[in-house]
Amino acid sequence: MQPLHEQSVAELSRLIGRRAVSPVEVAKSCLDRIESCNAKVNAVVTLQAEQALVEARAAEAEIARGDRRGDLHGIPVAHKDLYWTRQLRTTAGSQLRAEFLPDEDATTVARLRAAGMVLLGKLNTQEFAYGPTNEHSLFGPVLNPWDLRCYAGGSSGGSGAALASRMLPAATGSDTGGSIRIPASCCGITGLKPTYGRTSRYGIFPLAWSMDHGGPMARSALDVAMLLQAIAGPDAKDPTTADREVPDYPAALTGDIKGERVGVPRRYFYDRSAPQVEERVRQALQVLEELGAKLVEIDIPDIEHSAAAAAVLYYVEATAYHDDEFLAGRGHMFTDRVRRFLEFGNFILARDYLQAQRYRALLGRRVADQWRQVDLIVTPTLPITAMPLGQATVTAGNVEEPVYLALLRNTEPFNLTGLPALTVPCGFSSEGMPIGMQIIGPAFAEAKVLRMGDAYQRATNWHERSPRL
Amino acid sequence: MQPLHEQSVAELSRLIGRRAVSPVEVAKSCLDRIESCNAKVNAVVTLQAEQALVEARAAEAEIARGDRRGDLHGIPVAHKDLYWTRQLRTTAGSQLRAEFLPDEDATTVARLRAAGMVLLGKLNTQEFAYGPTNEHSLFGPVLNPWDLRCYAGGSSGGSGAALASRMLPAATGSDTGGSIRIPASCCGITGLKPTYGRTSRYGIFPLAWSMDHGGPMARSALDVAMLLQAIAGPDAKDPTTADREVPDYPAALTGDIKGERVGVPRRYFYDRSAPQVEERVRQALQVLEELGAKLVEIDIPDIEHSAAAAAVLYYVEATAYHDDEFLAGRGHMFTDRVRRFLEFGNFILARDYLQAQRYRALLGRRVADQWRQVDLIVTPTLPITAMPLGQATVTAGNVEEPVYLALLRNTEPFNLTGLPALTVPCGFSSEGMPIGMQIIGPAFAEAKVLRMGDAYQRATNWHERSPRL
Repeated sequence: MQPLHEQSVAELSRLIGRRAVSPVEVAKSCLDRIESCNAKVNAVVTLQAEQALVEARAAEAEIARGDRRGDLHGIPVAHKDLYWTRQLRTTAGSQLRAEFLPDEDATTVARLRAAGMVLLGKLNTQEFAYGPTNEHSLFGPVLNPWDLRCYAGGSSGGSGAALASRMLPAATGSDTGGSIRIPASCCGITGLKPTYGRTSRYGIFPLAWSMDHGGPMARSALDVAMLLQAIAGPDAKDPTTADREVPDYPAALTGDIKGERVGVPRRYFYDRSAPQVEERVRQALQVLEELGAKLVEIDIPDIEHSAAAAAVLYYVEATAYHDDEFLAGRGHMFTDRVRRFLEFGNFILARDYLQAQRYRALLGRRVADQWRQVDLIVTPTLPITAMPLGQATVTAGNVEEPVYLALLRNTEPFNLTGLPALTVPCGFSSEGMPIGMQIIGPAFAEAKVLRMGDAYQRATNWHERSPRL
Repeated sequence: MQPLHEQSVAELSRLIGRRAVSPVEVAKSCLDRIESCNAKVNAVVTLQAEQALVEARAAEAEIARGDRRGDLHGIPVAHKDLYWTRQLRTTAGSQLRAEFLPDEDATTVARLRAAGMVLLGKLNTQEFAYGPTNEHSLFGPVLNPWDLRCYAGGSSGGSGAALASRMLPAATGSDTGGSIRIPASCCGITGLKPTYGRTSRYGIFPLAWSMDHGGPMARSALDVAMLLQAIAGPDAKDPTTADREVPDYPAALTGDIKGERVGVPRRYFYDRSAPQVEERVRQALQVLEELGAKLVEIDIPDIEHSAAAAAVLYYVEATAYHDDEFLAGRGHMFTDRVRRFLEFGNFILARDYLQAQRYRALLGRRVADQWRQVDLIVTPTLPITAMPLGQATVTAGNVEEPVYLALLRNTEPFNLTGLPALTVPCGFSSEGMPIGMQIIGPAFAEAKVLRMGDAYQRATNWHERSPRL
């Protein structure tokens, strides 16, 4: 048997369910792994080893007396440090919250706690999740387990790296421009940005509220589905959650994608992709075709304005949210980089913010038009693989551009449109860096998106590869 | 029998239903009344007399052969000139649309057409509905049928004046800061701003899209309920409509309001009311109490910032919407007054727009908190009665303020919160000017709001009074 810290949520659930292993053994295995690996990748920033063992023992006892709460009972999890955790330090990666002890859990934290998951600690992210890498985190950068010279991607980089290095089987992330999908792709794991409104954001520090999404990260689509099952659904504390039924996500993963029409965008998503990225994603599309999916070439008009619109939206919303800190004379406590972003947001005009929102409505219609001819859309998650820390620009498709723009290019259109988007690993570059495939579906079609990701993972084993650490 | 043009929608429906009168007679009676009265009040700006008779004859024939479409079949209606009407001039009160012939109906227009209503024409409003009176309309001001020296209120002033002067039994309006309720109150008729999302705005020229609401205006709550029944519900063309069932509104008007808890705000809504307004509304509250309602004194914290927040929102949204006209070099075609508003909106910062939106969320919670202790809230619709045209300021509660601010004070909090708000006539000032009572309910509780308005109208007859013209 593989070591417990390497097992998936689904496997651990089976083992715990038939009492082959105890939640205490699982927690210990993960804690040992964190002990031996975390110094290398810097993913875990707050560890509650003692308390985790208390929780694991409680889970063990409940399960032993026949009170198993469900599939997630006794399985370890850790949360991005943007999620409020009751009486557990929640820094949001900022000096401004360095000592913050929430008196309440984020709704997602509470739901996973209620499901019986064992809380190991908190995962590294940069200041208020601002930006697509963790290079400027309060706790230092997260390093990529596949190459410690490279970034893990951000802002949920701690989650991506902890999962990739097999420190734990399940984590949470948040995604404003790609912050779940970018580290998931960079680290070779699986992450879902659900539909806007599918999961609660209550108790997650906002970056830009009209673009922020909370979602699960794990090593497989099945694991992600199991986590989503526990956290999805309306929340009275978050008025932006949708009052819609939650389907049975794990049950939807039948492996059968015959006849599914997969839209392959003709342009934009491949225009600036590194050749190796495009090659691996095209191979993955072939696998989907072999599984019975039909590839349909599509074009999404007007998508090329996504970056500008998204930037206006997050600059302004972040500035409005953090305004109080400046008014209270604490502006100097932000790092220079984030302070500059926040100050910049002060100068954007309302009419321009609204034009960005109007573009967003237009883009929503452009993507919605696609659902007449396809069921899902598949793109490379990122045009590039993870780069060395400190590298400022990258050239792909003959265009040199800042790394952060390249990282956001393929993901942020789906923050603008709020559509569910999953990334699954689909191979490696010749340098051994992971490459991800993004699967996008109509609003609230997470089951369909996850089914395709899972079918792909049944046919391949990229998601089972682990880095040597 | 009263002349047909004086009859309510409900009465006409009964008469037409038992074939006691023909839609043609009804249309002719209204057209004659328009002929004789409109020059005085200036409510109807486009009349399609011939076409209306064609439609009335078609309705007559359908009903005669047993194909009655429903309660509204054969009853005349006219639309605020902000609503698109297929092949019928739709000016939005602006030189910019002076010749505009829509190729499509607004959804509400289409639904009332499908219900068999006979379209008489279009009703006066000022340029793009910007502001709470019609003093600056392209077609000249609408005059108040109760005193032709006074404004009718705006921006749906044509609708209010046409109903009050008994030119027609049913009309549409739109309400961004009070534009249905203000003219309804000024003219002594009944008007409903439904919940945001209850009625489609497709084909209504926007003023400020996050505050705009379309709704019915008539002479009684029952008539309003009958119209709402036909127009409420989701519309694929307007993504802001709510996907919620439409209850049977007329059936909800049982006359029974026993035990309903009515919130009476302690402050704000009465602070600057003219003494006669407060007196009449207090008398109306007594009537509600005699009908079995329980009066509960309440306070809505933070409501005093409504005017500032609403102004920021509509300045910016209107500017963003009309931006293209300026870019196309047509900015000079706006009237000076509206052009100044639109230009002003260019200078508002995005962070301030978002702080206004955040205030709005706060106010929503403040009002939502009230529903724990009350079922509905009742206030004066306006702090004042209609004033002479050209009067710039008014003094009430010892504060002199611009008339437009006084007019918006009590209505715009419910554009910010999106809650359903009905105005019903509840008496007259000693000068003979109508006074309105505003009934506000929780989101989508139109049935409850209308039930109370109807119960009040069963017990009183203010809504049956008509001006001498």
